[in-house]
Amino acid sequence: MSFSADRYLKLFREELYQRVLPFWMNHSLDRECGGYFNCLDREGKVYDTTKYMWLQSRQLWMLSRLYNTAGKNPDWLEAARLGYDFIAAHGQGPEGRVYFSLDRQGRPKFIQRKVFAECFYIMALAEYSRAVGRPELKEEAVRMFRQVLRWVEDPSSLGRPAFEGNPPVSELAVPMIILALVDAIADESEPAAYESLIAKCLSEIRLHVRGELKLVLENVAPDGSLLQGAQGRLVNPGHSIETGWFVLEEGLKRRDDSAKSLGLQMIDWSFEHGWDKEHGGLYYFLDAEGLSPLPLEWFMKLWWPHCEAAYAMLLAFSVTGEKRYAERFEQITDYAFRHLSDPGHGEWYGYLDRRGSPTHTLKGGPYKGCFHVPRFLWLSIRLLEKMV
Amino acid sequence: MSFSADRYLKLFREELYQRVLPFWMNHSLDRECGGYFNCLDREGKVYDTTKYMWLQSRQLWMLSRLYNTAGKNPDWLEAARLGYDFIAAHGQGPEGRVYFSLDRQGRPKFIQRKVFAECFYIMALAEYSRAVGRPELKEEAVRMFRQVLRWVEDPSSLGRPAFEGNPPVSELAVPMIILALVDAIADESEPAAYESLIAKCLSEIRLHVRGELKLVLENVAPDGSLLQGAQGRLVNPGHSIETGWFVLEEGLKRRDDSAKSLGLQMIDWSFEHGWDKEHGGLYYFLDAEGLSPLPLEWFMKLWWPHCEAAYAMLLAFSVTGEKRYAERFEQITDYAFRHLSDPGHGEWYGYLDRRGSPTHTLKGGPYKGCFHVPRFLWLSIRLLEKMV
Repeated sequence: MSFSADRYLKLFREELYQRVLPFWMNHSLDRECGGYFNCLDREGKVYDTTKYMWLQSRQLWMLSRLYNTAGKNPDWLEAARLGYDFIAAHGQGPEGRVYFSLDRQGRPKFIQRKVFAECFYIMALAEYSRAVGRPELKEEAVRMFRQVLRWVEDPSSLGRPAFEGNPPVSELAVPMIILALVDAIADESEPAAYESLIAKCLSEIRLHVRGELKLVLENVAPDGSLLQGAQGRLVNPGHSIETGWFVLEEGLKRRDDSAKSLGLQMIDWSFEHGWDKEHGGLYYFLDAEGLSPLPLEWFMKLWWPHCEAAYAMLLAFSVTGEKRYAERFEQITDYAFRHLSDPGHGEWYGYLDRRGSPTHTLKGGPYKGCFHVPRFLWLSIRLLEKMV
Repeated sequence: MSFSADRYLKLFREELYQRVLPFWMNHSLDRECGGYFNCLDREGKVYDTTKYMWLQSRQLWMLSRLYNTAGKNPDWLEAARLGYDFIAAHGQGPEGRVYFSLDRQGRPKFIQRKVFAECFYIMALAEYSRAVGRPELKEEAVRMFRQVLRWVEDPSSLGRPAFEGNPPVSELAVPMIILALVDAIADESEPAAYESLIAKCLSEIRLHVRGELKLVLENVAPDGSLLQGAQGRLVNPGHSIETGWFVLEEGLKRRDDSAKSLGLQMIDWSFEHGWDKEHGGLYYFLDAEGLSPLPLEWFMKLWWPHCEAAYAMLLAFSVTGEKRYAERFEQITDYAFRHLSDPGHGEWYGYLDRRGSPTHTLKGGPYKGCFHVPRFLWLSIRLLEKMV
């Protein structure tokens, strides 16, 4: 049977507009204190009022992005403003750091010694700037981006002391997030402004893609040699696949064939290695030599790797026309709609055991918000519309 | 059938002396760089050379404790010295903090903003001091203990900033570990020295034992009121049961009937709530209102809660003579020997899925070392010997 873009377009539009966005629009908006409730149970009831800045920013980004690209729905803009006002009033602490979590009223709870809260803040600000036509917010995003580049160069400036027992490490997450940030802030009028930074990210990513192992490692030495121990063997298939489609899109934008093949290679190897042949679904973590990965939850099936992998396969199919990518897209989408989607209550489950049964009934939590599912559906709909 | 102390005495002696201690004595001693290898796979092969200070100290404590109480085996003393020399040379960093992890050679890798590395260091030093007859090491342990009490009073002194969005919290782990430290350092010659501190710990623990819920909460407000949100609903059955038997032993030592009943109450409620009626085994985390606990691994069955619970039931049986405690001891021991013990290779598995199959084949890792299994067997053997 040949691939039916029509069928998926219909399915994804229904899922996005009837079951996913309504969940967040109906349950997450905190009209009393501003911002978004993040901790929502299966039905959308608030089970904890902590506000997580990763997710405040990601929801602001998502709503602004939809407003900018999928129809000027005033409800999305109004909901985006609710998030922006809260983030602007409460999100930043000393030295320009963005908090990790706040209480319901916006009082700070925790700050991480990592830059991800800042990264999602940058993406949100840049996108919201376009939605409301306020260029000064984009300028603020660019300033924060430059600061993030400085923090990344010297992580000890975030308060995590550098110790001599730790060898220098290239983490895949760093060039990946910088690529994503460049994509978020670079407007079409400035194609050359970030060229050398993009090239640096791509060459750093390339160090993680290991021909001798046929897989993508999360951590390698900065010179590309393998790191000893569990850290050096860690594989995160969902993350590698997500980085793969970023690199593939970058290759398409830059007409860079070597980036395109690199992205396809990352997607191929990571899916091949990461898919559970017995029970289906993508493992959260694996060890390159087949030992037990140290994270206790390594064998669980999370929602976001399936979002990333399904979109990666659809993109790879649209680029190459190879049937195997369409088949994998259908395989992953089928798994996601059977195990993760929850038509009765909207949004997706986030966490399944190895056999595919939910271990958590929550729809929103400290790391799951209005982001991966609607982004996946929106990205896929855009691509399917071009295919139809 | 009546309880057969003989049968368990035989089983536990074989397990400890033929299958658990030999695993660590054969595989963990690093003769080249000193200290102990912590990351050992199912057969005992080193899969990572990182040395975790929690486990360096706990193994030093265990070997010294066995030497002090279970026969003067010179191999144990020699292995203890290997650990002590490494810890003394490399364990401490700036401001007297004890590192969380070191590389194989002892160069620092990481320091936590928590006091547990210091706590296990204190226990190890005090016990090793008795084994080698060096009272100055006990004095060093007491000095560190006083420092830990200061850090606990003001956690922001460890570098974790205090933020106004966090309500003050009483964590069960704190009075629990202080009780354990007092037990580790107080010699019989000084029964009154720590009286008021013990009383303070017991009254803080009492705040966590909730008659209205019939369970033990990990976190409550310092005035005993309930905390909002997921943090306030978190239950860790293994930890509550472990605290329960500590409190019960404290009650026995002090002839304090109210502490004895408190300990029994904690054991009863935590087991009743924490045992998986469908698949057996103790859950790692639960939510007091039955929601999904936030830790992804909440449904897993870990080795240490089963060690703590089996010993707690044996102790409760020896104190009360009530048959139900003997039955629960047999139920938990049966589960542990069917699912966790690995007679072919020694030591126990650490991590099982909800159905009781190992998710990790490792025997030693960042949080699992020569401690819970041998301590459980040694504690139980001591008690069973009195019963026989």
